[in-house]
Amino acid sequence: MEAPIPNIPTHADNAVVWHGEHLYLLDQRILPLQTEFIRLNTGVEVANAIRDMVVRGAPAIGITAAFGVVIAARNGWESAERDWKAAMAADLAALAASRPTAVNLFWALARMQRLMDELGDEDPTPRLLAEAQAIHKEDIAANRTLGDLGAALIAEPAAVITHCNAGALATGGYGTALGVIRSAFAAGKIQQVYADETRPWLQGSRLTAWELQQDNIPVTLLIDGAAASLMAQGGIGWVIVGSDRIAANGDVANKIGTYGLAVAAKHHGVKVMVAAPTSTIDISVASGADIPIESRAAAEVLYCGGKQLGAPGVDAWNPVFDVTPASMVDAIVTERGVVLRPNTEKIAKLMAG
Amino acid sequence: MEAPIPNIPTHADNAVVWHGEHLYLLDQRILPLQTEFIRLNTGVEVANAIRDMVVRGAPAIGITAAFGVVIAARNGWESAERDWKAAMAADLAALAASRPTAVNLFWALARMQRLMDELGDEDPTPRLLAEAQAIHKEDIAANRTLGDLGAALIAEPAAVITHCNAGALATGGYGTALGVIRSAFAAGKIQQVYADETRPWLQGSRLTAWELQQDNIPVTLLIDGAAASLMAQGGIGWVIVGSDRIAANGDVANKIGTYGLAVAAKHHGVKVMVAAPTSTIDISVASGADIPIESRAAAEVLYCGGKQLGAPGVDAWNPVFDVTPASMVDAIVTERGVVLRPNTEKIAKLMAG
Repeated sequence: MEAPIPNIPTHADNAVVWHGEHLYLLDQRILPLQTEFIRLNTGVEVANAIRDMVVRGAPAIGITAAFGVVIAARNGWESAERDWKAAMAADLAALAASRPTAVNLFWALARMQRLMDELGDEDPTPRLLAEAQAIHKEDIAANRTLGDLGAALIAEPAAVITHCNAGALATGGYGTALGVIRSAFAAGKIQQVYADETRPWLQGSRLTAWELQQDNIPVTLLIDGAAASLMAQGGIGWVIVGSDRIAANGDVANKIGTYGLAVAAKHHGVKVMVAAPTSTIDISVASGADIPIESRAAAEVLYCGGKQLGAPGVDAWNPVFDVTPASMVDAIVTERGVVLRPNTEKIAKLMAG
Repeated sequence: MEAPIPNIPTHADNAVVWHGEHLYLLDQRILPLQTEFIRLNTGVEVANAIRDMVVRGAPAIGITAAFGVVIAARNGWESAERDWKAAMAADLAALAASRPTAVNLFWALARMQRLMDELGDEDPTPRLLAEAQAIHKEDIAANRTLGDLGAALIAEPAAVITHCNAGALATGGYGTALGVIRSAFAAGKIQQVYADETRPWLQGSRLTAWELQQDNIPVTLLIDGAAASLMAQGGIGWVIVGSDRIAANGDVANKIGTYGLAVAAKHHGVKVMVAAPTSTIDISVASGADIPIESRAAAEVLYCGGKQLGAPGVDAWNPVFDVTPASMVDAIVTERGVVLRPNTEKIAKLMAG
């Protein structure tokens, strides 16, 4: 009989939880009106959970994949002992194929692979688990550091707009964009957060609003198409977003809609801040044009809340991410420091430092 | 016993139907997956149907209100004979209060009022009905004329983006923005229509997609936030939208999201066309700043498809319209002619002509 799901608090900080000997994910597809943890028992189950967006957000995907490697290796050791690496190959392949855009996935898998390469004929579980837990802890620490660095950039108290969810739910905890917002709110620098609802998955209205409510940070939702109009009214100081992959030149892949938000920000003199750990920076891709952009099913646009609303049989263009050119980004904020007006040279210097 | 709803074809051209002695509206809140006509029996019922968005789209609202006046006057005559004007006062007030932004409503009510002022102690129904039917027919004729004028502006075959629904469903038939698209497609000048889904009511995915499918015009949906990214890929020639009210200086109130789309269009060198009958032009308001912008309940943002998805208790900013400044509009296309790069002088000349 399957062990019952333990009673883990349904807080945004607990999106990815290693509890006892198991990995639990807070199912982000049904938040906030339903709060349910899912236990993942195999590497393929973890890969499917990433693909199906039980967990989402680049850093959270990376952390989850690292724990997926732990589970796959443990299962491999249990079934094949010394041949554990061969036994887990399919799990690793599934994890690597789960989602294409967030580079944190590949970054975490590569880091776990480096450790696996060091491991020999012993049970790999303890050391891999320690590494996955280190990745998780380091991500939280990075978020707190970059949160403070980003908050320091906000000169005057203002309202900010964020897109999608780059919060505790999208990371190990605390958040990237919402980490900056948390730090800035605590410092009295943010009066009001406006959250794009972020179609088609509504991460803004389902996740960001829920998360900020938990912390008593004032949040107002708006449809994605209203952001430019809100900026035209004045009072918005910054657009603050996360990222799924930052290219070597500072181009930023993030949730679809970010680019349009940046275009509107530039038109209205609103500054654009991208908050991300350095694990999101991929110096192997020269520019945003080289970042693979995931497309998902048209049904995500035609359906809402599990119900078909759009005209049956109509086609939809459903890219999950877009690319905001570095020239539109005022600051990339990482745990290693801030890059103002990013370019290839500045990004290289940050990553070398 | 209530008469059954007659078997009216559920075509986009039949959004507002005077059939026999009754007004029927195709319920646009549930299209396209449900097709249902509603019969309106009093002026207040018509006003409520406008308020609740059974019918929407500035010209269609105007036509519906005109028929609402007919129904109110007929009921007034039946109940009070010579005192029919006093008996219908509450209906007229309800119609005028139904929605604030679309000026076609007030234009149609004023036109009906002018005729009412001429009418004395006779049954007003026949002449008012003829006037409402004239408004309806003139709107269709205006759409066909402006459709051809707008199509003539499209120099090279390209893809276009439209927002909300400015089609047959939003008018007497044929459509304003979709009228231009119909005419341009017939002339081989449009290769592909991209339709913003248009949250929160999804007029794009529910209405525009359905309407264009009926006419076999290729249509692809996208979330509102993806439009800028689509423009960045190239191939988009025009943004073509309707309007709810155009100010004397050419500022354009239209569905929320239009302004952001125009900002993105200007950034990418995409032209912006606003298609509307002259009944949408309100020379009594100097600029867009003077146009009353309706706000609706936060629940429209928190819910989708009748289901709550957003975080309970969170606030939402839900303006229904925004204002695109005349400086961002390349052409206003009316049945009386085209105004390129609109300003107060050019609009005044059009309206005087």
